[in-house]
This record gives sequence, C-alpha cells and structure tokens, in this order.
Amino acid sequence: MKNIINDALKKYVLSINNPSLRDAIKYSLLAGGKRIRPILFLEVIKSYGLNPLDYVDIAISLELIHTYSLIHDDLPSMDNDSIRRGKPTLHIAYGESTAILAGDALLTDSFRLISSSLILDSNIKTKLIEVLSEKTGSNGMIMGQMLDLASEGVELPLFDLDQMYEKKTSNLIVASLVMGAIVSDEKNTQLWSNLGFILGLLFQIQDDVLEETLSVDIIGKTKSDTIRKKPTYVSILGLNETKMHILKLENEITKIINKLKLFDSSLYQLILKIINRSN
Amino acid sequence: MKNIINDALKKYVLSINNPSLRDAIKYSLLAGGKRIRPILFLEVIKSYGLNPLDYVDIAISLELIHTYSLIHDDLPSMDNDSIRRGKPTLHIAYGESTAILAGDALLTDSFRLISSSLILDSNIKTKLIEVLSEKTGSNGMIMGQMLDLASEGVELPLFDLDQMYEKKTSNLIVASLVMGAIVSDEKNTQLWSNLGFILGLLFQIQDDVLEETLSVDIIGKTKSDTIRKKPTYVSILGLNETKMHILKLENEITKIINKLKLFDSSLYQLILKIINRSN
Repeated sequence: MKNIINDALKKYVLSINNPSLRDAIKYSLLAGGKRIRPILFLEVIKSYGLNPLDYVDIAISLELIHTYSLIHDDLPSMDNDSIRRGKPTLHIAYGESTAILAGDALLTDSFRLISSSLILDSNIKTKLIEVLSEKTGSNGMIMGQMLDLASEGVELPLFDLDQMYEKKTSNLIVASLVMGAIVSDEKNTQLWSNLGFILGLLFQIQDDVLEETLSVDIIGKTKSDTIRKKPTYVSILGLNETKMHILKLENEITKIINKLKLFDSSLYQLILKIINRSN
Repeated sequence: MKNIINDALKKYVLSINNPSLRDAIKYSLLAGGKRIRPILFLEVIKSYGLNPLDYVDIAISLELIHTYSLIHDDLPSMDNDSIRRGKPTLHIAYGESTAILAGDALLTDSFRLISSSLILDSNIKTKLIEVLSEKTGSNGMIMGQMLDLASEGVELPLFDLDQMYEKKTSNLIVASLVMGAIVSDEKNTQLWSNLGFILGLLFQIQDDVLEETLSVDIIGKTKSDTIRKKPTYVSILGLNETKMHILKLENEITKIINKLKLFDSSLYQLILKIINRSN
C-alpha cells in the first residue's frame, strides 16, 4: 500500500510547475514518512469490500495536509525544529519563506485533489472536504497547535493535555478514518470517529514515552518537547502511569475493533503495528 | 454590500473557539479592507438576476483567502512588512507563530465555508472548491508568490512580470468572478475569466504607480517593493508608458463589459470605481 501511495505522491510532485516549489515539496513529501493517514483511509475502504487502489488520489490529500502541518510546526517561530525524518527540516534546507509557501501549497492542493477527483460524485467529495476542513481548521488542528504553543512551560491538567492532543493529532486520524467510511457510503461514522480519537491520543502519548526513552538518532527528530518544557503525559503522570494509560487506550481500541467486526482485517493488523511501534 | 459582508465576517470570527486565534483573526479580517473580491463575486450573481444576499457566506470565503495571503506575505521571511491597512501587521501585533496559524486557519476555513454551505447543491460546491483551490494552490497564487520572492533585485522581462501578476493577483480575482458565474449556473465562464485576468493585472499595475507616487500614510502599507528592489511596471517601462498601458487594459475591460452586456449593471459601476481608485 505504501508504494502505491508514494507513486501517487511522486505524480503529484511532478504536477507542480515552479521548479523551486516543486523541489521543496518533493524534499518534504518524499522524505520517507510512514504514510499512516492515507493507509488508514485506504484500509477502511478495503474493510468495506471496495478496491482501495481506486482511491489513492484521495488518500494522498491526507498526507499533503499532514506534511504541511509538520513543515509549519517546524518553523523557527513555532517549534524551531532542525531535524525531521532524519534530515534537516525544510526551512533549514530551502529557507523559511519557501517552507511557509510549500506548506500553504500542500494545504490548498489537498482540497484541489479531492474536489477534482474523477472517481467520486460531488456529494461524496463535498462531505470529504467538509470533514477534512472542519478537523484541520480554526476549531480543529490549528486550535491544537495554538494550545500547544501556549502550553510551553505551563503545568497543564491532564484534561487540557487531552484536548490539545485531540485537536493536534487525533483530528486528522479521525478525518482519515471517517473519510474512508464516507467513500464507502457508510452513514454511521461514529465508531470510526471514536477509533480515530483514541488512536490519535495513543499515538501522541507513545510519542511522549519515546521522547523520554529514545535518542534523537532513533526517533529521527529533535526532542523539542523536552527542550521547550512542554507538558507531556510523562511529565504529568510519570512513565509508569503513562504506560498504564496506554494499555487502557489499547483496551478501548480492541472494544471498538470488536464492534466494527474488524478482527480479521488488514486494518486491524495495521493498528496492532501502530500499537507496538518502537519509533 | 460591504456592510453585509462585514456582518458575515464578524459572524465567522465569533465561530472561532480559541480566544487567542479569534482575536488575531479578528484583528486582520476586520481591519477595514475594501472587500473587492467578495463584492465582485456577489455583483456577478446580481448581474444574473439572482439575490446576492443568499450567497454572502460563500462570498466571504474569498476574503478569508485574500486575508490569509496578506498575513503570510507580510511575514518577516517574506515581504517583512510592518504596516498593513494602516495598522501594524499581524505578526507585529500578535507574534509570528500566531500569524502563521491564523493564515493557515483562514485558508482551511475558506474551504469549510463553501463545503458546509446549506444553500448550494454539492455539484456547485465542488466546482467552486475546484476553481478556488486551483487558482490559489501550487500552480496558482502560491506560484505567484514564489516568483515574487525570486524577483528581488532581478531585472525581469515584462512577460515574466505579467505572469507573476497573473498568478499573484489576477488568479483570485478570476476565481471571484468565475465562482459568481458558477453559482449563477453559467456554463461558459471564459469571458469572466478574461475579465478577472485583466482586472487583476490593472489592479497590480495601479499599485506600482501608487507605490511610486503616493506616501505611506495614504496607501496604508509599507513601500516594500521599492525597499526590496522588486521589479515593477514603473521600473521596467517608466511612469508614462505604464500609464499608457493602464489605458490599454481599461480599453480591453470595456470591450469585455460590452460582450457581457453589463454597461447598466452595478458590477460595471464597481469596476469603474476600481479603475479610478486613488489608493
């Protein structure tokens, strides 16, 4: 699945006419990410018995948005990160203005890819764009990033940290799963939404643990949370209680997988991989 | 028309949950712009005999995109402007990270407003998003901004300057007019597209003249083009030939207005106002 996604991403990169912009976007987009969001989207579609290969061009819109958010988050005035996916961040390699514009282009093009799709009818396309823009806009991912920036050096209650993680990370995972369900003509997307919420939280809390326990070499990015004194699950609950909390979330995921009757699916295999990831 | 647009923008601002983000977006969005793009969109609709008041929530998506582009263009790593619409730019007033995120939110929310509209059917909504994202994405407005940044201190041929102005400025004007035509169920949008292209060029070349002839107090923003040694029509052609060129464009606009049978419309009155603007 990952190879097919990477091929579609390469095709997208070739569609960019301005050479400097194309190079910059290529640098970030083809830097070897895990492609979790597009894969989740395609796996949901597969679980409904549809052919995921038909929807790859929609799937990559999720990777475009994810990559834009990383590029902007890494900027000097934001997290000021210099390493991402084991390489210098985009603004280090191509300059800050190009990094801002590359992010803007990826965000805008994400909606272009969906709206210009030839395989979906307008009704579905509109619903996809509605979900994606809602989950990533002012009351979604951007709000999460605002909360994140405001959290520096602050002792947050766990409730607020959860809200921040929901907006920052869960929202785009929710969008990936719910969009897969919408394409599959599923009318009730609530369980998918719940699954995305918990999976995003889990992912973010795993990051907190990894940041605490692994070296920069292995995680492939700067330990900016520690450096900037941002609250994490580990800083609030300690390592052991955080690990207990992760187990609780894994338990909740299993319950939803059961309700969705997904134990035999490759989607569940992927989720197990995420649960057991080591970087 | 402007008051109705401002009311809709205020309603949008109130929908933003995070207080810091809301304040920042309010600061930029309600700073008293001319609202040319949403007004053009609504005037096209009016010229087809439809009620423009029904489409105000779509109209403001154009002002959101326009404002996002101004906020990001003003950033220190871009044009590094400190004054906009007679006030300190957003990054001066609220910090750079908030300015970047406010721009990202406006861009994303623009697509949310269109996709969640209750008055349009999905077919129209999808077409609007397709046009808007195409005109503002990697091969549209963003490409214009890339060309603009690369033009600093460079002597461009007029052809390249035209391309830059087309992408940077005409594209969103084209989108405004074409989107108005799409909402009005017009199948042939070519004349609208041509009109937007020339109107955008005219607007940008007028800016070149104003930057040359007016003080910062009157134009309400820094003379960054001069400071940064960017090519302009005036720097390439000189003031007199530039004014001749403006007359030629006005002439072409009149021809299109004639073809569209718009001489009696309030849209034409607005275009005349743009032609004769003094700041």
